[in-house]
Amino acid sequence: MKLLQEAIEQRGTIINDDILKVDSFLNHQIDCDLMEKIGAEFADYFKDRGITKIVTIESSGIAPAVFAGLKMKLPVIFLKKSEPSTMQDPVYTEAFSFTKNRKYTLCMERSCLNPDDVILFIDDFLANGQAFLSAENLVQQCHARIEGIGIVIEKSFQQGRKLIEEKGYDICSLARIQAMKEQTILWAE
Amino acid sequence: MKLLQEAIEQRGTIINDDILKVDSFLNHQIDCDLMEKIGAEFADYFKDRGITKIVTIESSGIAPAVFAGLKMKLPVIFLKKSEPSTMQDPVYTEAFSFTKNRKYTLCMERSCLNPDDVILFIDDFLANGQAFLSAENLVQQCHARIEGIGIVIEKSFQQGRKLIEEKGYDICSLARIQAMKEQTILWAE
Repeated sequence: MKLLQEAIEQRGTIINDDILKVDSFLNHQIDCDLMEKIGAEFADYFKDRGITKIVTIESSGIAPAVFAGLKMKLPVIFLKKSEPSTMQDPVYTEAFSFTKNRKYTLCMERSCLNPDDVILFIDDFLANGQAFLSAENLVQQCHARIEGIGIVIEKSFQQGRKLIEEKGYDICSLARIQAMKEQTILWAE
Repeated sequence: MKLLQEAIEQRGTIINDDILKVDSFLNHQIDCDLMEKIGAEFADYFKDRGITKIVTIESSGIAPAVFAGLKMKLPVIFLKKSEPSTMQDPVYTEAFSFTKNRKYTLCMERSCLNPDDVILFIDDFLANGQAFLSAENLVQQCHARIEGIGIVIEKSFQQGRKLIEEKGYDICSLARIQAMKEQTILWAE
């Protein structure tokens, strides 16, 4: 997605060979117009696939997910990193954040998903794929099925895509970074 | 906002006299169509007020905020409950969550706001006003100005509105709950 690649090049900051800072438009300050276009890309790629619900993880996945949800006329569920007192029958899984370097528990109200649900999982980044595995675990505990994965920025030099493809899932990544060196981004494909 | 009041009555659950569970459309599962209409209400109420940025708190404020942001052609900044490793020059404040019964630190990259910025603060709930006070603290540390406050659901029987009005701010609450008793909601006004 050219507009997204331009945003990354012009408004992102390469912290080091592994870490890209995109908090000026994606995961702290949100460019709503760009997010709407990102949501529309996901909606277009995953149309006619029988998807019934979109699942994301708080917080940075919410903006792209809700714009996709509006376009696809589907509800969005965001998985929670801490359990609110109002939760009645949650499912849990362990997760690990590399950017925050800590383990956390991800939870969802069990009644959010049922066995008939067909899920599109949307997230801001795909790196090592651990966030996806945690989401997959929760979806499976509800006996629902994941049909596809929509990623805003993929770090193609990490293991996430390989891991997910080996499981047979279809991934739509809107910007795929092959390498980051000396303030230059090399795009995959 | 009639559509929101209906959603609360039909899809919300009164846990007790104080706690309303709205995770079927607002703060866990998101009704994107309703959120878009909520965003449009805020955009309409706060038009022509010179607002330059929308500020919210992760995670449940993000959906209504980004739809308002899209309509108003403004960026949304979400304040963070934990500090990512990529943050470079944050401002901090203490906050307290009543639903999770714990203190937490709220932070924002200082460069997100500058002294010329005119802020619309949007949040999912207004209860005792503590979340707003924390956001106000961060905005003030950047010497920006808050012009208005957009709230999806106000618990009018708690102190938040009084506290905020006494500070001279304009609040737009789309649903105002005067009392919750035996599965019935009494609306304010």
